[in-house]
Amino acid sequence: MPELAPTLAVVGGGQLARMMAQPAIALGLPLRLLAEAPGVSAAQVIPDQLVGDHRDLDTLRAVTAGCSVVTFDHEHVPTEHLHALEADGVAVRPGPDALVHAQDKGVMRERLAALGVPCPRNAIVTSAAEVEAFGFPCVLKTTRGGYDGKGVWFVDRAEDGAGDWAEVCAEAFAVARETGVRILAEERVDFRRELSALVARSPSGQAAAYPVVASTQRDGICHEVIAPAPDLDPDLAASAQQVALRIAGELGVTGVLAVELFETTDGRILVNELAMRPHNTGHWTQDGAVTSQFENHLRAVMDLPLGSPAPRARWTVMVNILGGPDPEVGRLWDGYPHAMARDPHLRVHLYGKEPRPGRKVGHVNAYGDDLEDCLERARHAAAWFRGDLGNESE
Amino acid sequence: MPELAPTLAVVGGGQLARMMAQPAIALGLPLRLLAEAPGVSAAQVIPDQLVGDHRDLDTLRAVTAGCSVVTFDHEHVPTEHLHALEADGVAVRPGPDALVHAQDKGVMRERLAALGVPCPRNAIVTSAAEVEAFGFPCVLKTTRGGYDGKGVWFVDRAEDGAGDWAEVCAEAFAVARETGVRILAEERVDFRRELSALVARSPSGQAAAYPVVASTQRDGICHEVIAPAPDLDPDLAASAQQVALRIAGELGVTGVLAVELFETTDGRILVNELAMRPHNTGHWTQDGAVTSQFENHLRAVMDLPLGSPAPRARWTVMVNILGGPDPEVGRLWDGYPHAMARDPHLRVHLYGKEPRPGRKVGHVNAYGDDLEDCLERARHAAAWFRGDLGNESE
Repeated sequence: MPELAPTLAVVGGGQLARMMAQPAIALGLPLRLLAEAPGVSAAQVIPDQLVGDHRDLDTLRAVTAGCSVVTFDHEHVPTEHLHALEADGVAVRPGPDALVHAQDKGVMRERLAALGVPCPRNAIVTSAAEVEAFGFPCVLKTTRGGYDGKGVWFVDRAEDGAGDWAEVCAEAFAVARETGVRILAEERVDFRRELSALVARSPSGQAAAYPVVASTQRDGICHEVIAPAPDLDPDLAASAQQVALRIAGELGVTGVLAVELFETTDGRILVNELAMRPHNTGHWTQDGAVTSQFENHLRAVMDLPLGSPAPRARWTVMVNILGGPDPEVGRLWDGYPHAMARDPHLRVHLYGKEPRPGRKVGHVNAYGDDLEDCLERARHAAAWFRGDLGNESE
Repeated sequence: MPELAPTLAVVGGGQLARMMAQPAIALGLPLRLLAEAPGVSAAQVIPDQLVGDHRDLDTLRAVTAGCSVVTFDHEHVPTEHLHALEADGVAVRPGPDALVHAQDKGVMRERLAALGVPCPRNAIVTSAAEVEAFGFPCVLKTTRGGYDGKGVWFVDRAEDGAGDWAEVCAEAFAVARETGVRILAEERVDFRRELSALVARSPSGQAAAYPVVASTQRDGICHEVIAPAPDLDPDLAASAQQVALRIAGELGVTGVLAVELFETTDGRILVNELAMRPHNTGHWTQDGAVTSQFENHLRAVMDLPLGSPAPRARWTVMVNILGGPDPEVGRLWDGYPHAMARDPHLRVHLYGKEPRPGRKVGHVNAYGDDLEDCLERARHAAAWFRGDLGNESE
């Protein structure tokens, strides 16, 4: 039977897959979802779905059957399964040889070093003694499986109490042994702020670079994004975009690549992390750019021409909505009357997730000509939904 | 079990319900769909669905069970069923007493006359003799069930061949008898162009008015919309918005109300049609306004504060994509590489419908500072998808 459009398989039912569903509706692109459980964020909004384990090859084969392309909500599908899908004739985008750089920080650091891309000083370490030799203060990271502050340890030799650092090291190495991963040590960079350079790249090699944004993390979780990064030196912005485009090209990334960067106090940029999927630092594009990162991810993996990444407003501010300390199930919906009445220009994005303390359950975007006004509006709304106005950012 | 948000029932699985699904995802608002057949436009994108007949009360009760609110993709649900749902305790939005004015043109004309809203001269007619007495040229319309040029006849006494008009009348009255509706005669208005005034109104009485747009019809089907209407006298624009707000308020409309208007050659506005749902003349809002008509429809029927209807660009042009004379199933998808590569700023919206000659299968939006440029881009893309560039609008 002839079809209106090819079907795209999406592995993972989180909010990123959910937000891909919106442009997929407009593009007339059918999605087939592999969800980790019934009723998860994306499973609420994508009819064609399978519930199963993304670590199981048969399940992956079932969800990609009849699909020419598969893409991802997360980076946790085992590399060998991705190769098996490719051998089956499914286009895996991003492909396993690119994706491994977002899955394994050790591989990523090695490759970026080979490309001459500036990174924080780093080394694979296997013992507390090696950490000490690497030098303090440093950060220990599991090479695989860490996210949102998990699998990350800050290590310092406190002047007033030796010994603590060794405990932290012991914990990190225990986790590494348990989960069969390595530990990467990285210098603690003296940074002015964190930046993110987001690009989309198609298999044909077309690429689009979004404006470089500034992001604020709290407890390892992205909290706030300002697009574009205020007062960013134009040359530094250009080189951040060039680094992202170069990495996307050299690694053969298809889809969205987010390059998280440190802007150092002495005016350099260093690559912190890579993500090969729509990224929290690109959520502002839903309301602030001509083409959202979610649409450009779909266009890229389907090898369609990319949409313009140009901003639609002078400033766009994104603030994440996290579950508050004392979450109630209906709190987000119940927060609408105030948030919407106060600010008819506010853009709210909820993920259909039950608020639990610290859990990302949505975000708000505010755009306009006045940065302070956008910040105030977005921060107020996010704090309101969190039920936590007393701790509102200033 | 406590729930994150109430569920909204939507009756009808066409493209309007499909396009409600996009803001519903962002709002975290679960939809439950009554689709007329499996796999129709909205059924492709809303997981929680029932297939059945909207003229069957038991089916309507099944789809609204557990929903506090029901809304519509179309205006074809029988009024008595809507009253029955209200008696069951479901909030029907728009309610039956408002909706009847969009369902029955006879009732609508009577009510607008009572309100003193300017309309074309009109009368219910029951015979060819009454049509002759009404005067030529005129338009005959079935009071119920007509849309997109169906149930509409243009009647004129041709100077060179009497008799034709009587045949047209006979056809109209035959259709009326068959379907049990009345025939409304309306004067053929000497109009400069057609305008549309779109408002959203919530049960609490809050209302938001979008900029008045100019629309072009072809063969009774909306073809092109320019937002805002070029060179529209500001006083006339304001009175068009006031008429729409007044009708929404007096009729107790909840959700989106589209008031289609004639701008007469002598500078007046006359109400042509009412629609109480998102409307083709409001599709430009998806990319051209702060809040789309689809989001404001959802916010209105859920009695949430409305979003700003302000435009985001100086001009937005919407052109419908119709099935061409020789449609191929894959033509829309296959049209992407050219359309997207030529215009990275173009916004495309496809409905997941198989192209058949003259069928609405999607639309494009183009926005910017230069109206001629927007028109050229949107018309080119729509003609390209139609496979009909030779007939491109000039």
